[in-house]
Amino acid sequence: MSEATQTLDGWYSLHDFRAIDWTAWKMLSSDERQAAIHEFLGLLEKWNATQNRKEGSHVLYTIVGQKADFMMMILRPTMEELNEIETEFNKTKLAGYTIPTYSYVSVVELSNYLPSEGDPYENPQVRARLYPILPKSKYICFYPMDKRRQGNDNWYMLPMEERRNLMKSHSMIGRKYAGLVKQIITGSVGFDDYEWGVTLFSDDVLQFKKLVYEMRFDEVSARYGEFGSFFVGNLLEDDRISKFLHVN
Amino acid sequence: MSEATQTLDGWYSLHDFRAIDWTAWKMLSSDERQAAIHEFLGLLEKWNATQNRKEGSHVLYTIVGQKADFMMMILRPTMEELNEIETEFNKTKLAGYTIPTYSYVSVVELSNYLPSEGDPYENPQVRARLYPILPKSKYICFYPMDKRRQGNDNWYMLPMEERRNLMKSHSMIGRKYAGLVKQIITGSVGFDDYEWGVTLFSDDVLQFKKLVYEMRFDEVSARYGEFGSFFVGNLLEDDRISKFLHVN
Amino acid sequence: MSEATQTLDGWYSLHDFRAIDWTAWKMLSSDERQAAIHEFLGLLEKWNATQNRKEGSHVLYTIVGQKADFMMMILRPTMEELNEIETEFNKTKLAGYTIPTYSYVSVVELSNYLPSEGDPYENPQVRARLYPILPKSKYICFYPMDKRRQGNDNWYMLPMEERRNLMKSHSMIGRKYAGLVKQIITGSVGFDDYEWGVTLFSDDVLQFKKLVYEMRFDEVSARYGEFGSFFVGNLLEDDRISKFLHVN
Amino acid sequence: MSEATQTLDGWYSLHDFRAIDWTAWKMLSSDERQAAIHEFLGLLEKWNATQNRKEGSHVLYTIVGQKADFMMMILRPTMEELNEIETEFNKTKLAGYTIPTYSYVSVVELSNYLPSEGDPYENPQVRARLYPILPKSKYICFYPMDKRRQGNDNWYMLPMEERRNLMKSHSMIGRKYAGLVKQIITGSVGFDDYEWGVTLFSDDVLQFKKLVYEMRFDEVSARYGEFGSFFVGNLLEDDRISKFLHVN
Amino acid sequence: MSEATQTLDGWYSLHDFRAIDWTAWKMLSSDERQAAIHEFLGLLEKWNATQNRKEGSHVLYTIVGQKADFMMMILRPTMEELNEIETEFNKTKLAGYTIPTYSYVSVVELSNYLPSEGDPYENPQVRARLYPILPKSKYICFYPMDKRRQGNDNWYMLPMEERRNLMKSHSMIGRKYAGLVKQIITGSVGFDDYEWGVTLFSDDVLQFKKLVYEMRFDEVSARYGEFGSFFVGNLLEDDRISKFLHVN
Repeated sequence: MSEATQTLDGWYSLHDFRAIDWTAWKMLSSDERQAAIHEFLGLLEKWNATQNRKEGSHVLYTIVGQKADFMMMILRPTMEELNEIETEFNKTKLAGYTIPTYSYVSVVELSNYLPSEGDPYENPQVRARLYPILPKSKYICFYPMDKRRQGNDNWYMLPMEERRNLMKSHSMIGRKYAGLVKQIITGSVGFDDYEWGVTLFSDDVLQFKKLVYEMRFDEVSARYGEFGSFFVGNLLEDDRISKFLHVN
Repeated sequence: MSEATQTLDGWYSLHDFRAIDWTAWKMLSSDERQAAIHEFLGLLEKWNATQNRKEGSHVLYTIVGQKADFMMMILRPTMEELNEIETEFNKTKLAGYTIPTYSYVSVVELSNYLPSEGDPYENPQVRARLYPILPKSKYICFYPMDKRRQGNDNWYMLPMEERRNLMKSHSMIGRKYAGLVKQIITGSVGFDDYEWGVTLFSDDVLQFKKLVYEMRFDEVSARYGEFGSFFVGNLLEDDRISKFLHVN
Repeated sequence: MSEATQTLDGWYSLHDFRAIDWTAWKMLSSDERQAAIHEFLGLLEKWNATQNRKEGSHVLYTIVGQKADFMMMILRPTMEELNEIETEFNKTKLAGYTIPTYSYVSVVELSNYLPSEGDPYENPQVRARLYPILPKSKYICFYPMDKRRQGNDNWYMLPMEERRNLMKSHSMIGRKYAGLVKQIITGSVGFDDYEWGVTLFSDDVLQFKKLVYEMRFDEVSARYGEFGSFFVGNLLEDDRISKFLHVN
Repeated sequence: MSEATQTLDGWYSLHDFRAIDWTAWKMLSSDERQAAIHEFLGLLEKWNATQNRKEGSHVLYTIVGQKADFMMMILRPTMEELNEIETEFNKTKLAGYTIPTYSYVSVVELSNYLPSEGDPYENPQVRARLYPILPKSKYICFYPMDKRRQGNDNWYMLPMEERRNLMKSHSMIGRKYAGLVKQIITGSVGFDDYEWGVTLFSDDVLQFKKLVYEMRFDEVSARYGEFGSFFVGNLLEDDRISKFLHVN
Repeated sequence: MSEATQTLDGWYSLHDFRAIDWTAWKMLSSDERQAAIHEFLGLLEKWNATQNRKEGSHVLYTIVGQKADFMMMILRPTMEELNEIETEFNKTKLAGYTIPTYSYVSVVELSNYLPSEGDPYENPQVRARLYPILPKSKYICFYPMDKRRQGNDNWYMLPMEERRNLMKSHSMIGRKYAGLVKQIITGSVGFDDYEWGVTLFSDDVLQFKKLVYEMRFDEVSARYGEFGSFFVGNLLEDDRISKFLHVN
């Protein structure tokens, strides 16, 4: 048996993608729609307060194409809180005009490939990465992925040393994009259908393509990467929500 | 032909995952909702009585993410009872406000890899595992799985001895999690689309990830495991049901 | 080219799986439901008469889990009759409260691996297997399957002699279950998405699991079997239909 | 690069499979249903006139099993005409009571494996095959297929000569069924998800199974064939439509 | 690690496929339908103005078969504009009578296999290809694709030189169709589920089949191409929209 990689695990994460039932939404009276938006903004205020207390974080993005109209990415210290938030949202008036299209359950993860000293959970830099306040970048990219276990291309049969070296060269590519793309890896083994979720943030949407494409030529992706659906979106700030949901 | 593994088989099992149609549910009057909840709690009372008589067992969990809002795992001595329970639930008022999203039919299974003396079905320790009262752990994890039959990675072409050795080292990992994670294996060959269902219980949701991830580096999973969807949830105790279903 | 296996073909077969729209069904008045049940029982009477004349056969089973609520397996001498029966059912009031979830079109098939003398279609034992009156066993199991054509595991590239030997050892397993499990093979090449449908009948549901699992270690299944969905159900006798469909 | 096979291409083809929403259909008044049937028969009259002018062809079949209730196969000289016919049908009253379940867009194709003299498009025998009046056989079988490109089984990497020889022996099987089964190959590379559609016509439905099964042992299918869904149906002649759509 | 291919990237692209809910559409009054069409034509006017200013481009095509009734391909300088256009369309009255069936998010891409001098983004010929005004050809063909990473057929493990040579011979085929087929490649790594979208335009629909089929025999497609769904359609010019949407 290959030695398992050790991970550090932070906040639990829910990516929740929704389409809007515009036809039903338009059939509401303007007042009803205002009430629904008002209720939703109230929910966001609570989430913002949580974020201000650094007890969680969240972002909203509109999604391009038919896979969803918007997504919420929510981080919380416990799985219960994620579940409660999801249920609270589902009970809102607005949620009744949305159609769930995809979701992802995971936990912020750091792979402990490099040796570290002391309790990493006490290390401020590590903590900042395990319990991150999500950036308000202009663009988001999300995709889930597996490491392949297929014939001769079986990641999990590789010795730790080889995986470590492969990941080191892989992360070099990521580093070239430092300052351009912020990457949050969430682990989902045992939680959802793929092994990891990758969430990228950038103010230049083209960098997503450049980064993912460059990585694809690296052996870690080329031989061992299996990718799920890709979602790309634009930041939906609180003060743009009313406009986004406005219909005549 | 490789020698087939002998199994011990206990109670039949139904995992039943449901989404809630919150929009329709909210359109009911408060009284109608109360009546529906009351009826459902009555059903649970009957299930609890069955469990108290040790003639079956069940648990309810809310599910995180869009795959379902809650799940029921139900164990009974016969397939007929599972079918009756399922139909009885389907006829309740509450069920009309749920949408079936996934189910799994199987039977509690012990793989008889280690030789045993006497009739195992009379062994109290074996009986406790074949006819288990499900724990009320804080978290549940469920996933179905197959043993791979693909090219050179064909579990069913391995000699019994090799399978036995592989499983022994595999179960060592499980044992490291004793006290942290309780695992119930249910066999579903001939009953459902995968060969086994794995249900994990823990009071620390992160242990699911650690256990499944560590196992993935073991040859049994790395080369021979094929996994279906993963579901993770929080315990839904009877006295929390009204709150869970409460809407304004 | 490998020599093709010769088959004997009997009655055409339709497996028709349906979920029940309980919510809509409950919205009917008790009288309307009675009328719908009455109409359906009338249809069954006609099918029973056909069966009594040995011009076809049928069984009904309730299905465990969300894949369906019940299934009808219907055998008839011609494809037209199957189509007419299906259409006649679709036009009933009850059908309007069912949702089609899966179906399978095939023909009862005997593989002519063993040499036989005389016209097999005149052999009474062969006829009994080609035009079978379906047993009213307590349990049914259905799954479709293919023989694999993948890399080195390509059934259709094997010489006839090797296929014959493999099938002989495979059928030995089946024979061990004689008296416990009755198996009806239906061929569906050219008729539906898999190459065969396997329908098992037993009074002990656990025998399905034992049989299918034991076979999986045999090379025919281990290397060459590709399986579709598995359905398992309980006998639904005519006099239990009203109770099954009864709602308050 | 392997030399590409040259093809001759005839009429464009649309296979359009529909389920009937019997519940909604039954809710119409008898007069409304008659009007809808009348309108549809009017459409068929136009199609029949086109066919009489040999400017296209069409057939209707009812489909066995839940994949569809009926299908229309329509041939026309241009893609625009197919699109117009489809849209015209979609705008009929009857179409509003059908649910699209599958469709296939292709073009009648002859593979030019054998050398021919002169302009084949002027050859009457070739023309009869490129612009065929579809037979009113009792049964239809349709399935789409690809030539495999997988590891060592890559059709498109074979030299032309080898493909030619393989196809020759493959077509020998087809010839054995001359008079029993009529086969129309339509090419769909660039038009739909598979590379070819195969439509078989016969007055003996069992011949579909025999033909497709025998071919499966031929290397072209065994190593290089990838098959989509199979549909089988019974001829729906114009004068049987009213009866097929009749409900009480 | 293989050297990554450099790309030039132009306008962002949204392919948006829609089915029409003809039944609901017909239930509108003629005036309501006229208003919906009028509103949609107003949207097109804005898009036409954008195109006239060369700040984007778009085309509409009706789609043959059940995959969609029509599609819009829209090019814009930013991802935000695509998202806004999509949302604006979704809020129209017409959109409420459409059903999203597929979409694709990508960016016009030139692969920089051939060395070039100077800043290619300043090269007028390059600019014309990165920011193209879409042709009003009679026919469109769209399909997404991946380069394969499977066993020995792993595009991303090939050295740059080999990929370059393979692509050169591949593009030779494309050149044979110059004047017959116009091809626009859009890259979607990081944006959507496949790596590229291929959009072909032609006045002779058969050329799509000839081109794609001929390419399939080329090693780049034969060994390394993985294809998604294929869509084929007929030009829907603004002045044909009213007729297309006209119902009695």
